[in-house]
Amino acid sequence: MKEVIAIIRPKMVSKTGKALEAVGFPAMTVIECFGRGKQKGYIDVNLPECCVDIQKVIEEGEKQGRRIKYIPKRMISIVVEDVDVPLVVGIITKVNRTGNYGDGKIFVLPVDDAVRIRTGEAGEVAVGN
Amino acid sequence: MKEVIAIIRPKMVSKTGKALEAVGFPAMTVIECFGRGKQKGYIDVNLPECCVDIQKVIEEGEKQGRRIKYIPKRMISIVVEDVDVPLVVGIITKVNRTGNYGDGKIFVLPVDDAVRIRTGEAGEVAVGN
Amino acid sequence: MKEVIAIIRPKMVSKTGKALEAVGFPAMTVIECFGRGKQKGYIDVNLPECCVDIQKVIEEGEKQGRRIKYIPKRMISIVVEDVDVPLVVGIITKVNRTGNYGDGKIFVLPVDDAVRIRTGEAGEVAVGN
Repeated sequence: MKEVIAIIRPKMVSKTGKALEAVGFPAMTVIECFGRGKQKGYIDVNLPECCVDIQKVIEEGEKQGRRIKYIPKRMISIVVEDVDVPLVVGIITKVNRTGNYGDGKIFVLPVDDAVRIRTGEAGEVAVGN
Repeated sequence: MKEVIAIIRPKMVSKTGKALEAVGFPAMTVIECFGRGKQKGYIDVNLPECCVDIQKVIEEGEKQGRRIKYIPKRMISIVVEDVDVPLVVGIITKVNRTGNYGDGKIFVLPVDDAVRIRTGEAGEVAVGN
Repeated sequence: MKEVIAIIRPKMVSKTGKALEAVGFPAMTVIECFGRGKQKGYIDVNLPECCVDIQKVIEEGEKQGRRIKYIPKRMISIVVEDVDVPLVVGIITKVNRTGNYGDGKIFVLPVDDAVRIRTGEAGEVAVGN
């Protein structure tokens, strides 16, 4: 099994989650993060209210004359069977591609095992929903 | 060595940390996240004060008529030697199992190396406490 | 390719990011987290404003008489080619080492693949900046 990690725009989480659920991947973990890439210096103006704290981080940095900007992002993590990796990567790419800098990155990491705590099931049966 | 990642209820972090420490695993990283699984639609009512922002995310979603709910969770990460994986997974499962949806998931990922920054020690000696 | 994950002090993120950028690694993801290690009980007094929520978590824990303290940290994640791992690990270690408990840890995890969403490029070409 594999962990598919995507670093995407905050406003794209809902759309990405809906697309993944529609194809049979309801399970997802979302983490607030901030990132820096080729687009350093660019600030996303569509900050949701929930990003106030991260916005403060950015403003504080600017006050201190820091050149490098960190942009609010969301990290989404989905653990899937190997066979589903191309599908999940394809969906995330399709939904999040605008062609602009800041569209994000996807990483695929190997996972040795998964356990569903509620039942104690391990292995492939614990993956996904 | 392996990274054991668990996605659990926010209110279970303290209990989980104490159990792991009692058995000799004091080191742990905790990340606020929100998740979605089989229990989508269910909202945990025991939100600690620190989750106000995540709660806003949920409320915002509901105002917009989104059907899928994201539930505040905590991701805990512990890097251990291979031989300790069954013990750590067993402790996390035991402490967090209520039998209800939302108990969470555990994932085990391979780790190539670890470095303790304070001393520069690398490998097995840098794992754990 | 590999994911280099470092758990460091919040106030060291900017310095670490600048050092990595200066050597040709501009891409980085930063996540707020809190950690516990050998230094349990120690509280970092230099909390930036953005850590108010995490501070609440700590205060709440203390009110409840919890002995174990969680210290605000930042997790930085960088995905690099295998050949660059020693350099990136060396830079992060050098910048973050004070010799005191709480300097942090670095973990190196295998990564199977990377995708740049904007262009759809995959593999080594999608790594880094």
